[in-house]
Amino acid sequence: MKINGVSYRSITPVDAQVSAVNVIDQRLLPWELKFVPLASVEDTVTAIHDMWVRGAPLIGATAAYGLVFAARRDPTDAGLAAAYKVLVESRPTAVNLKWALDQMMATLSPLSSADRLAAAIKRAQEICDEDVALNKSIGNHGKSIIEALYKKNPDRPVQIMTHCNTGWLATVDYGTAIATMYMAHDAGIPVHVWVSETRPRNQGAFLTAYELGQHGVPHTVIADNAAGLLMQRGQVDMCIVGADRVTRNGDTCNKVGTYLKALAAKAHNVPFYVALPYTTFDPQIEAGSQIVIENRTPDEVIWVPGQMRDGSVGQVKITPSNALNPAFDVTPHHLVTAYVTEKGVQDLAALQAGYLTKAA
Amino acid sequence: MKINGVSYRSITPVDAQVSAVNVIDQRLLPWELKFVPLASVEDTVTAIHDMWVRGAPLIGATAAYGLVFAARRDPTDAGLAAAYKVLVESRPTAVNLKWALDQMMATLSPLSSADRLAAAIKRAQEICDEDVALNKSIGNHGKSIIEALYKKNPDRPVQIMTHCNTGWLATVDYGTAIATMYMAHDAGIPVHVWVSETRPRNQGAFLTAYELGQHGVPHTVIADNAAGLLMQRGQVDMCIVGADRVTRNGDTCNKVGTYLKALAAKAHNVPFYVALPYTTFDPQIEAGSQIVIENRTPDEVIWVPGQMRDGSVGQVKITPSNALNPAFDVTPHHLVTAYVTEKGVQDLAALQAGYLTKAA
Repeated sequence: MKINGVSYRSITPVDAQVSAVNVIDQRLLPWELKFVPLASVEDTVTAIHDMWVRGAPLIGATAAYGLVFAARRDPTDAGLAAAYKVLVESRPTAVNLKWALDQMMATLSPLSSADRLAAAIKRAQEICDEDVALNKSIGNHGKSIIEALYKKNPDRPVQIMTHCNTGWLATVDYGTAIATMYMAHDAGIPVHVWVSETRPRNQGAFLTAYELGQHGVPHTVIADNAAGLLMQRGQVDMCIVGADRVTRNGDTCNKVGTYLKALAAKAHNVPFYVALPYTTFDPQIEAGSQIVIENRTPDEVIWVPGQMRDGSVGQVKITPSNALNPAFDVTPHHLVTAYVTEKGVQDLAALQAGYLTKAA
Repeated sequence: MKINGVSYRSITPVDAQVSAVNVIDQRLLPWELKFVPLASVEDTVTAIHDMWVRGAPLIGATAAYGLVFAARRDPTDAGLAAAYKVLVESRPTAVNLKWALDQMMATLSPLSSADRLAAAIKRAQEICDEDVALNKSIGNHGKSIIEALYKKNPDRPVQIMTHCNTGWLATVDYGTAIATMYMAHDAGIPVHVWVSETRPRNQGAFLTAYELGQHGVPHTVIADNAAGLLMQRGQVDMCIVGADRVTRNGDTCNKVGTYLKALAAKAHNVPFYVALPYTTFDPQIEAGSQIVIENRTPDEVIWVPGQMRDGSVGQVKITPSNALNPAFDVTPHHLVTAYVTEKGVQDLAALQAGYLTKAA
């Protein structure tokens, strides 16, 4: 992913010893691009909990480096276990968080304390590189969907609706759902993206619009409420979203508001795709109804951050009342046209079979 | 409707000659309650176009007084026709606007120029009084729905979801959809209202929450995106919304985002009601697909107004990108459980028959 023509990853060690990793404080985007170093378990927990970093894959990668810092400070079993505990609890919903931590622990546990730091650095780097490779693959598979839609109706750019941010900023590089748009755009397929602002945290308006703009992909921001009308009036050719967790039956837990788009897509025969790496697939959970939905602070609804008239970053309060702030909802599998993973564009049976193949 | 214990209407002549009418500049709510006088056709057009006043019934009442000012300045046919033209074009979607203007013209046209001002004052007042009577009636009919739900499940307050503002502030008094909540609350039926913020203009967070708070009705603000999850998890017993226009087949044009709630309600067997006075029913239009949807300025999406940390009212920008801002969507009639009008809780056939009865 490029910003002003320079390639970046969203998480990068500052040196070969990984004395720290640089991440972007995404709360400041799109107004300011600020890299901040994380150098301890505590830094890492703060960055995840307070959403300096967000997006399931990037949360996982960041947590992996949290265990690198733990292995430097106290590489004993007790030291790692304590770090694991605070890291795994830093965000309740993202399955990648636990996945990445478990990957790290599986590598470190059999080793002597003396060998753990070097192994942790190596495994964290692999987790990042694997994410990049997965996302390139997801992007290329998704590109084929967009290409087919364009061939069917070459009179206009393919109209793609997305939700929240699934891009470079949500992963180590490329992104998941958005990778498909980057790949299509780079291949010369005309696309136009409807970016839903994604209240309450406005990750669409802040981050997705920023990424697409930096990459030169035509896009328009809409209020989340406008999704139904645009589908009703034939202005959307496909929806594609990411996922925080996909359960065994294909139910998709993703940013709140995803479900409403899926319902509208179904009502108007607009294909609805979920892009995910297999690390987001969680066959341990049978169905979406079993997922506990995180309620975040009401302040995220009540206070809207943004750029003020004088150019500084500030907040306005939009209601004197109380608010409830559930962060996710569940899109039942019957509303999902297909899943776009690193293994291809898959129906539910193929998604399930692909997981078993990998595990075997 | 009371504010700090004092009863108000949302539009009131300042004297018997109607040298002006006081309205509330609703753009300042909930932070400031400011009454502003309108004394000319131009004032009236500005107040409607720039949404100092909003809500179909209040727009109609305000436009009626616009013709009072026209009749004072130039009561000739040409003078009234010119005023009619600018008033009817001040907002494109609300059917009450044209209805109220046509009512006024039907009264004034047969009269001599000399008689028109007095007749205009009288008819405008009647339009206001009729609106109040209609809303009381709508509120009482809707109360019966809420009461029945409470009897079915008396273990918790009836959980009502609404959208936008249909209250006192959208009408001359009482409101339409919200009148049902006021009437239920005043009758001692426990209710709790989910107030969707209603992006992009946040009429829910600003106005509905303000009204309900002033009246003492328990309520919680949510991001529009949360509507699907709350219905999915059984936290909504009924939805009730207003309408800007209901076509002959029952399709309901209302604030953008209404349709997404209706889809979610259908998916979870939550009854979905549309509250409207017959002035909002437009059998001249066969179906919602024939309605032209107003695109308002992208700035309403891009800039969010609210109260700043220092207590002053300001705005923040939420995206550096362009936006599209359709103001309404269409909820197809098959998603509407029933229509709550001044004639009762009606199915589509009864709604249509009720209109014919009135016209006969």
